[in-house]
Amino acid sequence: MPEHRQAKIVFSPSGKHGQFPVGTPVLQAARELGVDIDSICGGRALCGRCQVEPVEGNFAKEGIVSSPDHLDGLTEDELYALENGQLLAGNRLSCRAKILADVRIDVPPASQVHQQVVRKEYDARPIELDPLVHLYFTQVAEPDLKHPEGDLQRLLKALEKDWGLAELDCDFSVLQSLQSALRDGQWQVTVAVRDGTRIVAIWPGLQEHLYGAAVDVGSTTIAVHLCDLSSGDVMSSAGAMNPQIRYGEDLMSRVSYAMLNPQGAGQMTAAVRSAINELLAKVIDRAKTDVSQVLEITLVGNPIMHHLLLGLDPTPLGSSPFALATSRSTELPATELGLQLAAGTRAYILPCIAGHVGADTAAVMLAETPWQLDEMSLIIDVGTNAEIVLGNRDRIMATSSPTGPAFEGAQISAGQRAAPGAIERVRIDPKTLEPKFKVIGGQLWSDDPGFKDELGEQEVTGICGSGIIEAIASMYLAGIIRPDGVIDGSTAKRNPRIESSERTFSYLLHKGQPDIRILQADVRAIQLAKAALYAGARLLMDHMGVETVDRIRLAGAFGSHIDVKYAMVLGLIPDCDLEKVSSANNAAGTGARIALLNKASRREIEKRVREVEKIETAIDESFQDHFVEALGIPQENA
Amino acid sequence: MPEHRQAKIVFSPSGKHGQFPVGTPVLQAARELGVDIDSICGGRALCGRCQVEPVEGNFAKEGIVSSPDHLDGLTEDELYALENGQLLAGNRLSCRAKILADVRIDVPPASQVHQQVVRKEYDARPIELDPLVHLYFTQVAEPDLKHPEGDLQRLLKALEKDWGLAELDCDFSVLQSLQSALRDGQWQVTVAVRDGTRIVAIWPGLQEHLYGAAVDVGSTTIAVHLCDLSSGDVMSSAGAMNPQIRYGEDLMSRVSYAMLNPQGAGQMTAAVRSAINELLAKVIDRAKTDVSQVLEITLVGNPIMHHLLLGLDPTPLGSSPFALATSRSTELPATELGLQLAAGTRAYILPCIAGHVGADTAAVMLAETPWQLDEMSLIIDVGTNAEIVLGNRDRIMATSSPTGPAFEGAQISAGQRAAPGAIERVRIDPKTLEPKFKVIGGQLWSDDPGFKDELGEQEVTGICGSGIIEAIASMYLAGIIRPDGVIDGSTAKRNPRIESSERTFSYLLHKGQPDIRILQADVRAIQLAKAALYAGARLLMDHMGVETVDRIRLAGAFGSHIDVKYAMVLGLIPDCDLEKVSSANNAAGTGARIALLNKASRREIEKRVREVEKIETAIDESFQDHFVEALGIPQENA
Repeated sequence: MPEHRQAKIVFSPSGKHGQFPVGTPVLQAARELGVDIDSICGGRALCGRCQVEPVEGNFAKEGIVSSPDHLDGLTEDELYALENGQLLAGNRLSCRAKILADVRIDVPPASQVHQQVVRKEYDARPIELDPLVHLYFTQVAEPDLKHPEGDLQRLLKALEKDWGLAELDCDFSVLQSLQSALRDGQWQVTVAVRDGTRIVAIWPGLQEHLYGAAVDVGSTTIAVHLCDLSSGDVMSSAGAMNPQIRYGEDLMSRVSYAMLNPQGAGQMTAAVRSAINELLAKVIDRAKTDVSQVLEITLVGNPIMHHLLLGLDPTPLGSSPFALATSRSTELPATELGLQLAAGTRAYILPCIAGHVGADTAAVMLAETPWQLDEMSLIIDVGTNAEIVLGNRDRIMATSSPTGPAFEGAQISAGQRAAPGAIERVRIDPKTLEPKFKVIGGQLWSDDPGFKDELGEQEVTGICGSGIIEAIASMYLAGIIRPDGVIDGSTAKRNPRIESSERTFSYLLHKGQPDIRILQADVRAIQLAKAALYAGARLLMDHMGVETVDRIRLAGAFGSHIDVKYAMVLGLIPDCDLEKVSSANNAAGTGARIALLNKASRREIEKRVREVEKIETAIDESFQDHFVEALGIPQENA
Repeated sequence: MPEHRQAKIVFSPSGKHGQFPVGTPVLQAARELGVDIDSICGGRALCGRCQVEPVEGNFAKEGIVSSPDHLDGLTEDELYALENGQLLAGNRLSCRAKILADVRIDVPPASQVHQQVVRKEYDARPIELDPLVHLYFTQVAEPDLKHPEGDLQRLLKALEKDWGLAELDCDFSVLQSLQSALRDGQWQVTVAVRDGTRIVAIWPGLQEHLYGAAVDVGSTTIAVHLCDLSSGDVMSSAGAMNPQIRYGEDLMSRVSYAMLNPQGAGQMTAAVRSAINELLAKVIDRAKTDVSQVLEITLVGNPIMHHLLLGLDPTPLGSSPFALATSRSTELPATELGLQLAAGTRAYILPCIAGHVGADTAAVMLAETPWQLDEMSLIIDVGTNAEIVLGNRDRIMATSSPTGPAFEGAQISAGQRAAPGAIERVRIDPKTLEPKFKVIGGQLWSDDPGFKDELGEQEVTGICGSGIIEAIASMYLAGIIRPDGVIDGSTAKRNPRIESSERTFSYLLHKGQPDIRILQADVRAIQLAKAALYAGARLLMDHMGVETVDRIRLAGAFGSHIDVKYAMVLGLIPDCDLEKVSSANNAAGTGARIALLNKASRREIEKRVREVEKIETAIDESFQDHFVEALGIPQENA
């Protein structure tokens, strides 16, 4: 033991350490050493956030022998916290436990201020948890006849004294609930402070939970994820069809609807907001929390979804020069978007990049951070348009390519959205030209004995985007389709599935209710779509001056369902080592979640969006050349 | 003429002068010399704001001979402006007129940026016009496919280029109307910018007018004044009874109503907001303008009016320690107060000083600026409470004294509010003890021959606050009332108007429908009220350590109607040279107007309110002593 009754304390995982007088609370030692330990109640043993684990062991490297006994005994506050499950057995509240002798203290991830949130995606970095809104508990002085300061001014003084929060602004809605919160809480309240500058909510007594919602507004589906802002965990998720579909299946038909109907844009704005409200109610209910605790929401979407969500006119986006109302991020009270959230809740909408490249692509960029890599990354988000990003730490470009909705199963004779009953995998035997396929919702191939049982009452209803890609690629690999995309009529002799219809041929994939055929027109539609996608990627590569890319990331539903091998057979994407082609899953939704959980990421993506070089396919001649060239199927892939 | 074809220009009234190459536009010369000339269109000859008058004459002091001919001939733009009345004959548009030879240019007040707004009150300084919101016209670049910047970003660029306005924020409501404004105005728009930092409104083309409203929310009446923010002129005014009266005549009964009825405060909030909305519609209609051009509103009121207006709970103000929800100013979108104004309109509510001393007193202070004087000023605003300010440039104190509503005619047997039919002036002949009086709305005394004709069908309905003061002072001066306030029964022998009733006496002021008598109880009520008022003033003088004051200002309706001599006879106010006692008219309303027209005044009053020493009568023993002493009528005044 050191002289004069000092003891050594070592914190892990930071490794920070120091000497302190015996009797020093662990939290105080941590603060003095700059070890970030979370707290809402400010050391009042109320919130349980500051709990730590004293470790048993001989730590030669740090020169100490540590034991949980080297802290003083459990205090009454800690016994109470143990009883009500707030404190884990073996842990201590760092605001209560005092140092008696040398000790090593493990700060568990949940007690760290800037904890890392792990992501599921392959090859993805964790998110550093650093949300905009934080909770602070405080004790406010009671009013005093001699010092006629207002309730608000006494609250501000308490927050400055307890938490060093100076010169805070205060939402008017908070002022309106301040009087009752202070009196109901007997002058103890918890406030939510946004960005260290503004009080956006208040509760009587101690409030420990805070949530945020990340929303991906797709033209087809809307997805909402509710996240715990103190852990980063997704508490609940919900999705729904975008009800705007009743006004137009694809984006351009929605813009037309807005052009032709004076109230059209307003109807679509109301529809999408109401769908988001329903999903918000659902995720809040599923997470068993209360709407008053949801204080942040981030939203992403393509430019037309972005404008309709914000109540902006989408019609300038319908024709050249495709003028955005704003190309910056937008932040505003969520209630101004018609969202049924608390008055203090702020909505943040990521910036659009250009008239065809939206906030969804900005979110994909934020999820993928190509600017952190030396490798040249090609990131493709296939929806109605393909939005394409190419770059590395030196330079980033983005464009949008008019693939049309064929990859989503639209404009395909038997096409449908990815939903139960849709064919999603196809193989064709090159000898017999007989097919086998898998259906969404099932595990078995169609030639497996149990296939019909597994299907049960579910009919095979159509073919989705990934299914049509595999079908056409398999037809090509089996020799049914020629490199120029024509269904070869001579194969009809080998298998009756190749059928003649007027002057073209088709392939019967499935005899059922309905029959599912791949028509020549379907092959043509996919050829056009894949040529557009490929030409967009090539255009960026030309501008970048590269012949190959180091890695390819496929985002979105299509990107996560597609079998990369077949995409490459068809020539959807430029050549790349198959090992280096991977799915980025729902990168747009992930980007929305990152913007929700990490405030610095908002400034980061705003800066990147300003810097990214925007390439316009419509006015670039080489796009046309690439497009025409890419209409066929690359023969080297055969 | 100076060499190299230079000419001298002198601007009046600033006296700024310089040499410029022949052909320099006058506006450019003014800008280079730092002469403030107004402009909305930025030198495009559209707004007419920059017009100036070239002067004929030999100005020996400046060494020039000036003539209007020393500018070039009228341009087409100026001829057009002359025709449509935008340009006064003899004036020139400084953005168009070019200097040919030495010239003296007079900048008329309406073309100066910081013009002075003259006030009607005796002894009042002019207001320097410097409102928060200004208009800027600009030409925005059209959208360009190659540079996909949003409409907003191109607008911001244009404002920075034309007006040096950098890094502006933009209200969401402006973003929502931006697209149509730009296209309707063919890429020319006018924006309203608040405090040089935020766009709060936008119009297609040129918009030249901007208004603001100043609102005085009294417990009895509400007054609204609509001001032109570019001239400071009051365009229209309107007043109405405060509809909260149906929930309680005086402040404390309204607080009781809020205490006893769960929805009570909400009802009163809705009532006052709806009354303000009606008045706003009226003043906007009278000024023949449009609500979209009203972009600022300032509001003042006592603490209870302040809380009810803001939707805050007034009940803590009903009992000690009289806790305010906030003692700072409040600024928020006017729509959040339920006011039917434009989305970009901001409301500014002056700060309350203490639980009994409200934003109305802050406004009175702002109108009176006692901190600019060496003289010790006593400022009294008599309403249901008397709010009293004492101070000079060294030190300022404020208090509130519970006079009750007697001075407003309430709690007086024949009392009524100041309205047509109310007696407002009273004289009593000391010999005959016969009275004469004047009635509101009339010019003649009651003993004038034409009095009844002038009255017409109007009955004499009661006696108002100033009438009761004069009646009692006259009764005292005529010997009907003794210094202790007792009506002297022995005078009944001299005139039958002195009548006996139970154990006290009364004085019949007017025989009519109804009879108007001054009862002993009325005298007692006024004694209590005036003792409270006097004791409040004396209390401040004690704290300040002064025996006399240098000047007295009486604010509010009571203060502007009262005859100062009779107030002093009764001992309402401390002794002061009668010459130095004057009315401050509606100083609270004036303060609201100053806060509307001059942005610096807001920071000024916020600072003064924090610094003012708040004296609480309820806990000060010497207040009780002064109060008891002041119950009688000062004999030296007899």
